This record gives sequence, structure tokens and C-alpha cells, in this order.
Amino acid sequence: MEEYLSFAIGIAKYAGELMREYFKKENGIEFKEDRTPVTYVDKTINNYLINEVKKNYPKHSVDGEEEKYIVDSNFVWVCDPVDGTSMYTRGIPVSVFSLALVVDGEVVVGVVYDPFLDDMYTAIKGQGAYCNGKKLQVNSLDLGDLGCSVDYSMWNNAKYDTLDLVREIRSDAKICQIGSVAHAAMAVASGKISAEVFPGTSHGHCDIAASKLIVEEAGGIVSNFHGEDQRYDEDIDGAIISNEVIHKNLVKKITDIYDKPKMM
Amino acid sequence: MEEYLSFAIGIAKYAGELMREYFKKENGIEFKEDRTPVTYVDKTINNYLINEVKKNYPKHSVDGEEEKYIVDSNFVWVCDPVDGTSMYTRGIPVSVFSLALVVDGEVVVGVVYDPFLDDMYTAIKGQGAYCNGKKLQVNSLDLGDLGCSVDYSMWNNAKYDTLDLVREIRSDAKICQIGSVAHAAMAVASGKISAEVFPGTSHGHCDIAASKLIVEEAGGIVSNFHGEDQRYDEDIDGAIISNEVIHKNLVKKITDIYDKPKMM
Repeated sequence: MEEYLSFAIGIAKYAGELMREYFKKENGIEFKEDRTPVTYVDKTINNYLINEVKKNYPKHSVDGEEEKYIVDSNFVWVCDPVDGTSMYTRGIPVSVFSLALVVDGEVVVGVVYDPFLDDMYTAIKGQGAYCNGKKLQVNSLDLGDLGCSVDYSMWNNAKYDTLDLVREIRSDAKICQIGSVAHAAMAVASGKISAEVFPGTSHGHCDIAASKLIVEEAGGIVSNFHGEDQRYDEDIDGAIISNEVIHKNLVKKITDIYDKPKMM
Repeated sequence: MEEYLSFAIGIAKYAGELMREYFKKENGIEFKEDRTPVTYVDKTINNYLINEVKKNYPKHSVDGEEEKYIVDSNFVWVCDPVDGTSMYTRGIPVSVFSLALVVDGEVVVGVVYDPFLDDMYTAIKGQGAYCNGKKLQVNSLDLGDLGCSVDYSMWNNAKYDTLDLVREIRSDAKICQIGSVAHAAMAVASGKISAEVFPGTSHGHCDIAASKLIVEEAGGIVSNFHGEDQRYDEDIDGAIISNEVIHKNLVKKITDIYDKPKMM
């Protein structure tokens, strides 16, 4: 596992250099079919990962947000080369690189790298979570506590409309949007915010896989929108990423909102 | 005016150093009555500005978000020491410093400084807007155009609930939240996003004053929530900050939403 972690950190450093280099330059922005942007940087990092996995672990698969390399294996490297590409193209320095090793659907190694603050977040299953070598711990604030803040992602093409939840909880918790779900998850792991709610999209597992492990190794919980565990080598049913105190509370509110029939 | 701009840039550089120094440290966070946070950094910058104005321009007033120094003058230095304090306390590097010289309610000099990217945005009335010396120009995208994005601020205690607007326009434009209204306004001035909608709070003019001039000198428009001009040395009625193309469109949508009687 230590060797896999070293490999992942190496890829993260390469990705971070490229993200910094192209941040204030023309970054070859294009729009995908769902109108979300993709850049030269996303594609180059994704290709680099595929080549490195082929070279070092030819029996492993790669499931990248921009491109896949699938062999018959229960080991899958799940990657979002630039999580928060929209913010990246707008010149807002909040995007991060995310890479996880998933074995039989379960995350065993996770790395998230913030190239703008040079923060390397790492975890190996059962061994705690760290940022630049310092142990991470989620906070223990509940929804109504002063200082509690909840980040949410919003996607037009998502199954759940998080604005409904925002309206429900914003008189309690302070609501924010960091612009990268993996960056928000690292803020949860560090205790800086209390929860992140992610409604999911196709490829949503690429955004979340590494964060799933890092947050849980920091004492938090990551579940689907119904409070259940899920696989991270296939599409996910949203994600509630939070400390333990707030988690039940959020599952209840989310179930209340999204499972009842819509008022017409 | 050149002298006033130099003075403002000097204050901005002091503010930026302090913001960077305390960013990863304990920053003495406290919560104000409206549950919004304030830190040692906000207060220290605000006090420094008051002292420097007293020393250099004893006949001018200071209207800072954290503290005021009011003399009988039509010259007022309007300042938000840390715009985006919530993001600052969460360790997200998007907060900026904002300072404007307002004469008889009109902004004549504006400076916004992003200490994390070392971007100094400046404008003198009638002389264009610049970032690190490079001329700024808003984009010309309309709501339905690919690449058009609209940032919005959300405040529980604001007069207008921007979530209503978000629902209305999100199938057209890409919606985001940068976490600092002045930073978002600079993204408009730079052409990186197309509009920012700010529902206002008390002290809202402190957040917006410098941006009002910088965006307009970059070819954009800044109005209140009804499309009208307003003074920037007193509370404002929200702000629509955008390129010229999108502005009418937004004023119409906003007027439709907020001026009609609420459906019960």
C-alpha cells in the first residue's frame, strides 16, 4: 500500500505542476456535451496517468473523468485530473487533483492535491489521513452550532436538486460553495467545514473516490444520498460527506426532501 | 488622483501581507451579531487604514466594514478589509482586499487586491481599469451563450433571496459562487465570468465600492437591483455587476422576480 501511495503522490505532483503552469495561460478550454468545460490540462494529466499505470501496473485499470483504460482487474485507479475545472478556467485557485486506488469497489489509497496551497492530502485504509504529514481530524459541530458550515455542489444534470436542501438548512448552518467537491471534502477532513453535499453526476465517483477514504480516515462519514455505503468504481448515488454528528441529521433532511412525491 | 491611487495601493500591499501571513495560522475568529465571522486580520487592516488616513488626509472620513472614522467631509475612504472572510477562515484562498475613494457618493479611485495570486486591480475614474498594469475588458457573452457564467452571493439577512434568481437562469447560464463578491466582480472586469449578482447586506457598499469603478472602467455596468445608479458612501440596494450585453436581461429577470407579489 505504501508503494501505491508513493505512486499516487508522484502523479499528483506532476498534475499540480501542470495545473500551476497553465493557470494564468490559455488552457485550451473546450465544452463537453453536457456544457461542462474541459482543458488541455485535464486531458494531459489523464493521459499521463494511463501511461504510468500501463508502465508500472499493467494489470490495473484506469477510470479517469476524461478517459478510461479498462482491463479485466479488480484494481482500478479512479481519477479526476482537475476537480473544479470550471473554477480553473475562471482563474479561481480552488481546483484540486484527485486519485484513488479502488479494489473490489472499496477505496484503499487516496490522494488529493491542492497545487495552489501546496497541500498534499493522503490516506491508506486503516492508517489515518494526513495533510503534508500532519494528521487530519473532522470537527464535531452540529447544524445549529456557530461556525458550522455546509458546502454544496449544484449540477443542472444531477438527479437531486441541492437548492431544495440549501433552503431547508440555511437558517441553521452557514452555506457555502467552494467550487470543487474534492476540495470541499478536504475542508471537511481538516475540520474547517462540517459537511459537503454532492448530488452526483455521471463520473461522480471520479470526483469522490479519494475523498471517501481521506474523510473517513479523518473520523468522518461518506455515504450516498440515503446514508448507505456504496462502490467507488462505478457511478454513485450522490454523496454526503461530513462529520459523524451532522451525518444522521443530513440523511434525515435529505431523505425527507428527495424521497417524498413532488408537489405539483 | 494618482496620489490617492498610490496611497490606496500602499494600504492594499500592507493588507495583502497580513492576509497571507495569517492564512494558515490561528486568525482570532469571532462571530458578529449576524453570525458572520470577523478575524484579527479584518480588524487590524481596518485600524491601519484609519490611522493612515488620519495621518495623510485628516479631513477625509473612513467607512470600513469593521470600524468607521467619520469627519465632516465629502471624501470618504470606503473599505472592506477582507472581502470573503468566511472563505478566509475556511482556508479557501479567494478573499480580497477592497478600498475606494468616494467623493460625493461617486467612486473616483478603486483598488482590489488578491493577495493569493498577487493580482492588483486598479482604476481611476475616466482612465480605464488595470490588473498588474494590464488593461481590463469585460466579455460580451449573453445568458444563453456557451461559457457565460454568473456568480451570485447569498445572505440569509439580505433583502433579496438570490436562490430565486438562480433557479430562473441556471438552465441558460452556468452558475457559480466564488465566495467573495469583490473577487467575483474582478472576474467580471477581466472577462472570466459575465456577471455577479449581490443581494446586499448592511455595509454592502463597503464590499462593492471599488468594484463599481473597476468594472465600469473595464466596460461593464454596476447598478442596484432595479438597474439604477446609486451612491457608494451609504447602504446600497443590492448590486448587478455585469457586462453591458447581459445587464438589461438580468435587470428584467430580477425585477420580474422580486417586484411581483409573492405567491402564497
